Amino acid sequence: MVEHGTQEHNPVAGPPSERARVRRYHQIAAYDPQVVYDILDAMPLCHVGYVHNGSSFVTPTLQWRDGNRVFWHGSSASRMLKAVLEQDVCLTVSLYDGLVMARSAFSYNINHRSVMIFGRPEKLVDDDKEAQLRVMMDRMVPGQWDRLRPVTSQELKATTVLGMDITEASAKIRTGPPVDAEEDYDFPVWAGVIPVRMQVLPPEPDPRNLPDVTVPDGVAQFSIG
Amino acid sequence: MVEHGTQEHNPVAGPPSERARVRRYHQIAAYDPQVVYDILDAMPLCHVGYVHNGSSFVTPTLQWRDGNRVFWHGSSASRMLKAVLEQDVCLTVSLYDGLVMARSAFSYNINHRSVMIFGRPEKLVDDDKEAQLRVMMDRMVPGQWDRLRPVTSQELKATTVLGMDITEASAKIRTGPPVDAEEDYDFPVWAGVIPVRMQVLPPEPDPRNLPDVTVPDGVAQFSIG
Repeated sequence: MVEHGTQEHNPVAGPPSERARVRRYHQIAAYDPQVVYDILDAMPLCHVGYVHNGSSFVTPTLQWRDGNRVFWHGSSASRMLKAVLEQDVCLTVSLYDGLVMARSAFSYNINHRSVMIFGRPEKLVDDDKEAQLRVMMDRMVPGQWDRLRPVTSQELKATTVLGMDITEASAKIRTGPPVDAEEDYDFPVWAGVIPVRMQVLPPEPDPRNLPDVTVPDGVAQFSIG
Repeated sequence: MVEHGTQEHNPVAGPPSERARVRRYHQIAAYDPQVVYDILDAMPLCHVGYVHNGSSFVTPTLQWRDGNRVFWHGSSASRMLKAVLEQDVCLTVSLYDGLVMARSAFSYNINHRSVMIFGRPEKLVDDDKEAQLRVMMDRMVPGQWDRLRPVTSQELKATTVLGMDITEASAKIRTGPPVDAEEDYDFPVWAGVIPVRMQVLPPEPDPRNLPDVTVPDGVAQFSIG
């Protein structure tokens, strides 16, 4: 866990790149790869930013990580997946961990974790593509890939998988109670944190399940947040 | 609630703009303003996409809605807030509502809600700025603005508030069980949904609270997701 207001590390030798360097609240920024990895692993929903026909787009999609690379996938016909092969993108993951209620509106904040990664995605081909789809599945529900109806070559062809090295990245984490201006601590208003978390509920079987199927072991390991 | 696979509405007269028209999974797309509003109101964390120094950026920040406009704010020195006044941006909000486990990897999905809004933000000035900061606060904790140490003119000056009309927007909602290819329903694997939701935990008082302060009524109304 990053201690609030103290940590600033580099993911690679040397300083962060100009665009990856955090400006606002830089005192809570971290460039430590493990901090970046932990946030990516906690939240599969990411937001990919790119330009298409002169307009900025932010497309929500699912990411997964394997070593020092981040991956996402989609239909081979996707506007986003085609566009991002020709430009650098920004992939952002963020989690809302709580409302930080201070004594002044100006000191209100959000406890949060976020990561921004900049880079040029590459399209995976041949065996790499199927291998990473298996990794994606196993990140969600371990062992599930081998339990499913096997993937077909047509399905593989219709699916594009992109990978991007995690070389330009930064993370921000804010935790803990409000930090008010010292003179505001005497102001008579309640201050504190309303924590928020992701909650996984019990699995809901498909009404069309065959009578003898059982919930796979891996489902119990599903976690998010 | 949008019924899965059926709804496609327009927020304004006429068809959606070219960039707002949903391509992938267009059968779950909605252009109904109320659908867009409900998703914005459910999730304050948004992702703003813009270009700065030739690179795409996706900055997580908090949004709030007032009528048919969406707002966000930040430090007047923010790289993002300065950059977005000179370009159209994309503001995206999304929620992960559950993992949809199908019988084939190809039919896996995520139950989700998302909104994309395109437009040119405007900087709020004078009374409008303070008025919208009050709206932001009251959306989170009703009545809280008036309980806080009053905002100063220096604080207002250091804060930029942006507003953007919701005229180019689209929403996607996916709910319900997996939808497999008909011939896959005989494949003997468990299928179903692992639901996920945001959970609000009990408020944690700041250790430095004055002894006689009590949790404001509005805190009990805080909700997210």
